[in-house]
Amino acid sequence: MHTHEARLDALRKQLVKQGLDGFVIPISDEHMSEYVGAYAQRLEWLTGFGGSAGTAVVLANEAAIFVDGRYTLQVRDQVDGALWSYQSVPQSSVAAWLGEHAPEGATIGYDAWLHAKGWADGVADALKLRGATLRPVAANPVDAVWADQPAPSLAPAVPHADEHAGKTATAKRADVAQWLVDQGLDAAVITALDSVAWLLNIRGADVDRTPVALSFVIAHADGTADLFIAPEKVTPDLVAHLGNAVRVCPRDAFVPALEALKGLKVAVDPERAVAAIFHALTGAGAQIVPLTDPVVLPKAVKNPAEQAGHRAAQARDGAAVSRFLRWIAVEAPKGGVTELSAADRLQAFRAEGGLLKDLSFDTISGAGPNGAVVHYRVTEETSRTLEPNSVYLVDSGGQYVDGTTDITRTVWVGPDAAPAQVKDRFTRVLKGHIALACAVFPKGTAGSQLDSFARQFLWVAGLDYAHGTGHGVGSFLSVHEGPQRIAKAAGGQAGTGQALMPGMILSNEPGYYKTGEYGIRIENLVLVEQREIVGGEGEFYGFETLTFVPIDRALIDIALLSPAERQWLDSYHAQTHALLAPQLVGDDLTWLDAMCAPLPV
Amino acid sequence: MHTHEARLDALRKQLVKQGLDGFVIPISDEHMSEYVGAYAQRLEWLTGFGGSAGTAVVLANEAAIFVDGRYTLQVRDQVDGALWSYQSVPQSSVAAWLGEHAPEGATIGYDAWLHAKGWADGVADALKLRGATLRPVAANPVDAVWADQPAPSLAPAVPHADEHAGKTATAKRADVAQWLVDQGLDAAVITALDSVAWLLNIRGADVDRTPVALSFVIAHADGTADLFIAPEKVTPDLVAHLGNAVRVCPRDAFVPALEALKGLKVAVDPERAVAAIFHALTGAGAQIVPLTDPVVLPKAVKNPAEQAGHRAAQARDGAAVSRFLRWIAVEAPKGGVTELSAADRLQAFRAEGGLLKDLSFDTISGAGPNGAVVHYRVTEETSRTLEPNSVYLVDSGGQYVDGTTDITRTVWVGPDAAPAQVKDRFTRVLKGHIALACAVFPKGTAGSQLDSFARQFLWVAGLDYAHGTGHGVGSFLSVHEGPQRIAKAAGGQAGTGQALMPGMILSNEPGYYKTGEYGIRIENLVLVEQREIVGGEGEFYGFETLTFVPIDRALIDIALLSPAERQWLDSYHAQTHALLAPQLVGDDLTWLDAMCAPLPV
Repeated sequence: MHTHEARLDALRKQLVKQGLDGFVIPISDEHMSEYVGAYAQRLEWLTGFGGSAGTAVVLANEAAIFVDGRYTLQVRDQVDGALWSYQSVPQSSVAAWLGEHAPEGATIGYDAWLHAKGWADGVADALKLRGATLRPVAANPVDAVWADQPAPSLAPAVPHADEHAGKTATAKRADVAQWLVDQGLDAAVITALDSVAWLLNIRGADVDRTPVALSFVIAHADGTADLFIAPEKVTPDLVAHLGNAVRVCPRDAFVPALEALKGLKVAVDPERAVAAIFHALTGAGAQIVPLTDPVVLPKAVKNPAEQAGHRAAQARDGAAVSRFLRWIAVEAPKGGVTELSAADRLQAFRAEGGLLKDLSFDTISGAGPNGAVVHYRVTEETSRTLEPNSVYLVDSGGQYVDGTTDITRTVWVGPDAAPAQVKDRFTRVLKGHIALACAVFPKGTAGSQLDSFARQFLWVAGLDYAHGTGHGVGSFLSVHEGPQRIAKAAGGQAGTGQALMPGMILSNEPGYYKTGEYGIRIENLVLVEQREIVGGEGEFYGFETLTFVPIDRALIDIALLSPAERQWLDSYHAQTHALLAPQLVGDDLTWLDAMCAPLPV
Repeated sequence: MHTHEARLDALRKQLVKQGLDGFVIPISDEHMSEYVGAYAQRLEWLTGFGGSAGTAVVLANEAAIFVDGRYTLQVRDQVDGALWSYQSVPQSSVAAWLGEHAPEGATIGYDAWLHAKGWADGVADALKLRGATLRPVAANPVDAVWADQPAPSLAPAVPHADEHAGKTATAKRADVAQWLVDQGLDAAVITALDSVAWLLNIRGADVDRTPVALSFVIAHADGTADLFIAPEKVTPDLVAHLGNAVRVCPRDAFVPALEALKGLKVAVDPERAVAAIFHALTGAGAQIVPLTDPVVLPKAVKNPAEQAGHRAAQARDGAAVSRFLRWIAVEAPKGGVTELSAADRLQAFRAEGGLLKDLSFDTISGAGPNGAVVHYRVTEETSRTLEPNSVYLVDSGGQYVDGTTDITRTVWVGPDAAPAQVKDRFTRVLKGHIALACAVFPKGTAGSQLDSFARQFLWVAGLDYAHGTGHGVGSFLSVHEGPQRIAKAAGGQAGTGQALMPGMILSNEPGYYKTGEYGIRIENLVLVEQREIVGGEGEFYGFETLTFVPIDRALIDIALLSPAERQWLDSYHAQTHALLAPQLVGDDLTWLDAMCAPLPV
């Protein structure tokens, strides 16, 4: 069973045993998480595909794998074209493909714990046209043939201190209870792992890069809650923290508990809860009210303690990144630094203080042309050396108990001066970054209304970047957190209609990518804050910058900056110096002094 | 029947005769036009309400009138609160109100020729909850009691010359036929009056301010078409112009012709076709395919002849508006000019050349505080004198056979200098206007992505304006034309997802309104054009400005302008001078010289 061919064969035999003519394999877990644990990496085990998003469909005589534009090349590299046909989304889709390829009258299986109900409805409709049906399986057939499948993590769940959370779990549950009462509902099923963690002020170590614990919650209108979690993960500390109002139940008790909601009005978020939850509630006779998870918005709006935590985490993280950038400035021009060694060194700097819990995502360490691959993930095979006189892009972040960080810096690896075109592009990205950082906007403004501010200086030069400009960030939680976004109003990276609210944290990360040559991105985190404007009419907001690390002046064409932009940058570097100098010594401090000096006149 | 109370009584008696417990009265015609003919002004006749948007519902014992925020004050002024309850949309709606107020089991009537099918479905659903039903009437009960209801206009329909249209009607019908073939359809029902006019290259005089002829078209996949129009409107000239491929039929033949589409696949635009058309097609057994009117997009994308026509019309119109502004500059400080006399004088200047066909909308002539009323329409009762040392806003346009214009200028009525606050606000509006005029953006960009460029300088001062920034404009057609818009992505004046395309014309009209004091708006029309950018990647667009009339420097705080903004304004004035000087003489020319000189250093 070491070859992917053998695995596919075994799965097909298992499908026959389960009476299925086909099966769908997503990258997903029971919580629709962005990143999933090793036990849920069924697609990679089956096909070899190592990307973060994709789906496969296996029929008796053919099989297909569906990936988006980011992975067009990677899937051909990693997945055997003799066994799998490559399908591109959104041009193709599982529903459309099955609508053409499923045999007449076929029964196609899916694991209802790994898909949204809306997805299942769409596929079932497409199959109906073929006289075929979609059937939820009692047990996932991949698990039956995956002999060495890792078990789900049993890492302990731990309390998240009120001092960092800024609000007790009791108060948060009371808010959800009030929301339920206001809506005339009895209970809400909370399925997103970061929502569970935020609501109960707990953290875990079950998913790479995101400190959450595999668990579900049913929150009741009386302020109590049921937590469904593997007993191995529950420590006396946790039980004490949760208190009497939270009933701790084994995960096996989740479906019976859903069924016990018979006759009640239950809020379920169709974007976040898997189909199996809808099946259990509907089967039992509960009345499902589809509503957005009530934890999503309060989680996005950081309270004063969370805001203070972010500032502290960013200051600490900024010192580590700065020491790393000085190390790059000294070592890289010598020619011995690789993408991998750089990423390792950066992690070591972050870890030195003893407070780093994890990275917040796999470091994107992109030298030269690899920097132009937007979702690049360095491996032993792809790792390039940072060549003298080249561009290096590093996008990274840390998980600290007081905050989650995410920062991108692009630097010039000398010793010579950077070429004019690279400086021109970098400066246009910087001008866009500054324009967004300085934006002032009325209450009710969505991120999609600010996105063009960050692109305008590239646009006038006939350039753009093919990703969003900003995403939300959690507090010692997911580095990608909704519902707010700064992005174009339409397209694959579309913004949402969510109005920006004071307390929300977003990234500000315009970029520019020259395929085969270099990538540029400048990313800071910003906090939405209320602005008092003399003579202003109505409520207006702006951004407080949270991230402070020098921006490489070797890449700036100073002549392209307006006086206001120069002033912003000098002020930013002065703040950076004030924040980081107390944390640095010796050569690091000398480097900081130089990097934070006002731009030459 | 001279009082509104008597009219309401008469209508109620008529409802009883028709077996109805209630009736809905919109401001609408059979084409869902923005502006409707006098015969369709049923709401005004019944209630006295003179606004452009609103709906009334009459029940046996109560009645309500629904208007939006623009008309909150006006409705209370014009409509008797003893007879009507005032309802605000979107907070309330006809459906919601009927859902609460309709008697159990009631039959509520509506005229299916005046409402969209989606509206009727929504109201019917709301009534169902009361056990009540919505019934289309065979004859409108208002018409039965409105003794002196004007007849629909019988003005002749006339050919629109190919030289102005830029494309023959035969070629346009061939395009629609090709579209039908591509979609696998047999016919399209074209109901919007400007779509009919554009498709057949005809114009009319049936609706104020919009040169369209009351008529419907059924376009067939073989390139032929049926035109349904009152025979009185058809001249031999028109018949010759239409040719053999267009069958001219009386309007009475429209419903039978729809019924004759039995068994065929027919495109109908649910946003533009009234419910009665759906009823006729469904009843006859035609297969309705809901699709956007295929004329909408080609009509919005102006061809070279239409673009040239617009430039010529704007040049002519600009000279008339400039002569008017000089007249205002001389006469208004003396104190004898009123909003009404100014509007009349402006119309006279436009008419002098003999080419003006009509205004493109009622002139908004707003002195001082009236300028702050965004949808202000001057009447004998409201007309103010242009006071010395005050702000005057004039938004106006003309219909010429080669183009439709729409321009707003705001001027300072001396003799003293304008106050600093007014200059600050005007300059912020001007900076926004310039930022939008200078925008460069990639193919695929929607107007909602550009809207913030026009607001940014107001936003930083805590200010904004509560209307969209730009609307489409027709070619000797409607001054408000879809589908493109420049507006916020959400809210009452929401933008659409329509990408801007080369050839589209839009207004660029940011403003600022200080209630009770003054209004500011600067409006030019702009044309989307392709941009060749050296070193650019992909397709990029920008705007060509079409409107050239001096912008009042008495209201500009020059210190607030960037060097690039000064350069734009000086260049704009130089172009304005070059275009208008040949059309002006004497004092008008001297005035133009001064108004178009470069800004003082």
